[in-house]
Amino acid sequence: MRAAVLREHRFQVEDLPTPQPGPGQVLVKVRACGICGSDLHFFKHADHMVEQARKLGAPTAELERGLATGLVLGHEFVGEIVAFGPDAGQALKLGDRVCSMPFVLKDAGPALIGSNPETSGAYAEYMVLTAALCLKVDAAIPDEAAALTEPLGIAVHAVNKAAMQPGDVAVVIGCGPIGLAVTAMLKIRGVSTIVASDLSPRRRALALEMGATQVIDGRQESAVMAAAQAAPAARMVIFENTGAPGMLGRLVVEAPQNAKLVVSGIAAGEESLIPLVAIMKELQISFIIYYTPEEFAEALALIRDGKLNWKPLVTGTVGLADVNDAFKALEDPEIHAKILIDPRR
Amino acid sequence: MRAAVLREHRFQVEDLPTPQPGPGQVLVKVRACGICGSDLHFFKHADHMVEQARKLGAPTAELERGLATGLVLGHEFVGEIVAFGPDAGQALKLGDRVCSMPFVLKDAGPALIGSNPETSGAYAEYMVLTAALCLKVDAAIPDEAAALTEPLGIAVHAVNKAAMQPGDVAVVIGCGPIGLAVTAMLKIRGVSTIVASDLSPRRRALALEMGATQVIDGRQESAVMAAAQAAPAARMVIFENTGAPGMLGRLVVEAPQNAKLVVSGIAAGEESLIPLVAIMKELQISFIIYYTPEEFAEALALIRDGKLNWKPLVTGTVGLADVNDAFKALEDPEIHAKILIDPRR
Repeated sequence: MRAAVLREHRFQVEDLPTPQPGPGQVLVKVRACGICGSDLHFFKHADHMVEQARKLGAPTAELERGLATGLVLGHEFVGEIVAFGPDAGQALKLGDRVCSMPFVLKDAGPALIGSNPETSGAYAEYMVLTAALCLKVDAAIPDEAAALTEPLGIAVHAVNKAAMQPGDVAVVIGCGPIGLAVTAMLKIRGVSTIVASDLSPRRRALALEMGATQVIDGRQESAVMAAAQAAPAARMVIFENTGAPGMLGRLVVEAPQNAKLVVSGIAAGEESLIPLVAIMKELQISFIIYYTPEEFAEALALIRDGKLNWKPLVTGTVGLADVNDAFKALEDPEIHAKILIDPRR
Repeated sequence: MRAAVLREHRFQVEDLPTPQPGPGQVLVKVRACGICGSDLHFFKHADHMVEQARKLGAPTAELERGLATGLVLGHEFVGEIVAFGPDAGQALKLGDRVCSMPFVLKDAGPALIGSNPETSGAYAEYMVLTAALCLKVDAAIPDEAAALTEPLGIAVHAVNKAAMQPGDVAVVIGCGPIGLAVTAMLKIRGVSTIVASDLSPRRRALALEMGATQVIDGRQESAVMAAAQAAPAARMVIFENTGAPGMLGRLVVEAPQNAKLVVSGIAAGEESLIPLVAIMKELQISFIIYYTPEEFAEALALIRDGKLNWKPLVTGTVGLADVNDAFKALEDPEIHAKILIDPRR
């Protein structure tokens, strides 16, 4: 099969053996796969991540082996079932379109799809999934939308973690795909004040489309101050999706009393904050990356039921040969939000 | 009245005008007042706090005025009512012993007792309280115990913020008065594994008395690792009460998946952490300093009902003339946990 293999900071289209589904597994033909912010982060910072893990005494062998052997990324996917391994159950049929949380269940525990050569990801024509984790995609859902289930699941999780109450005000820092999806989820949950901030005019326009009630140019103004003015005395939940250096510490200073920060933005290194300031205001910081199976399923159901305005999120689709260009293009927020890969192209 | 006034990094016993209770207020004769860790922090770092607040653009005038005029600290108190202002209600009687959350309600909002010259604290013979905030202290409760209501209220709050579930394991970092009170509260709530860590053998012995199931010398061993061994796969709640430099970042690295950190320890300056590590483990950090009125009342009720083993916490009582010595003595954890001031001495 053809796959875009990450080697030495470049993707290379190569012919790899098509994986074979083992017990409890299915083989799917990938129909669409989103390029995730964490893929971009890994693409840029993989060496630094190895170095940091080593400094922390964390195991690095797996990551280093992946980097040496070449990795097939891709964990935001929809695919069509083309073969079954033994004992893969009766629930799914050949030709079913499915998506799945990005794990393959193994005896040693769940293995993250795209993180090592054995559980390769969806930047490829085919991939293996655990049948029990597959969710059938309704015929009415386009491939582009189904491939968004994973990032939308993170947004469902982020908003659940925030446990917002009526009257709370939301601030969304950074309107990349996750910030935009969080904005949409906040609107679905009936949050009446949603102040979204981004440096890019295009991203701010997308945030308004997704349900933001006010947008802010973070260079000119503070979204936290704007939200405090829009809803004085309301409890504030701040979603930090940028991972920009210094952002966490700045939000700790700006946040009002009793604010909650939900952090999905992946900063490259260490970040500092002043605990006394956080203590005086009784801030709470929740760091998030995943979702529960229920939240993943809820994201798919919201798409199916037409509740989630997903269309503005998808700004392009490329084939495997154009993955390098897509990674390059995603550096400019004026052009793209989410680019999908269609390995069939 | 006599008061221990903080001037230029020293307490000086001075004669100040006895405050007069205004509308809705009572005058109390102080019977006991605890020396709080935040008093120690303020005593050592007041200048640095002004400088830091200025750097952050926060108002410093009030703090600087207090430092210039001289401050009467003391917010962990029990006193006896000796006079009523107008409209102070019918609920309280002359001679009643009361404690209160450390605020005086004013038109401009609640003023923190001990933070400015107008709402002076309990390092003095007399102080003014808001009648509506006073809780009557049952006759059976000794003064020493009633003066602990405030720090015990913080422990009630810390444990409530942790929202522990059956099977969760607790780690208590730092066994000063707050860490010890948290340990006692965890025991009251039925937490079956409580691993407490302190550098001092005396403090570790106190932690065992208060209900710790295991104690750790933080120099030799990691309390987080010990707790993970004692209760593998349990969700972990880590109470950080030291404010030691580097502790927050270290706990972020050590904490297991889904752990919650409840931070009451006041670090002097900036602290750093690695967001990626916190994100990968979906950590949650709650910074705390206060309590709700209900939590404050619960602390007093727990003392009254004999549920809280408070005696090991009180390791000394001094008069106003000996406050400087007490602050000095509190630097050695081998000698003291909580020292009370009895201004009547």
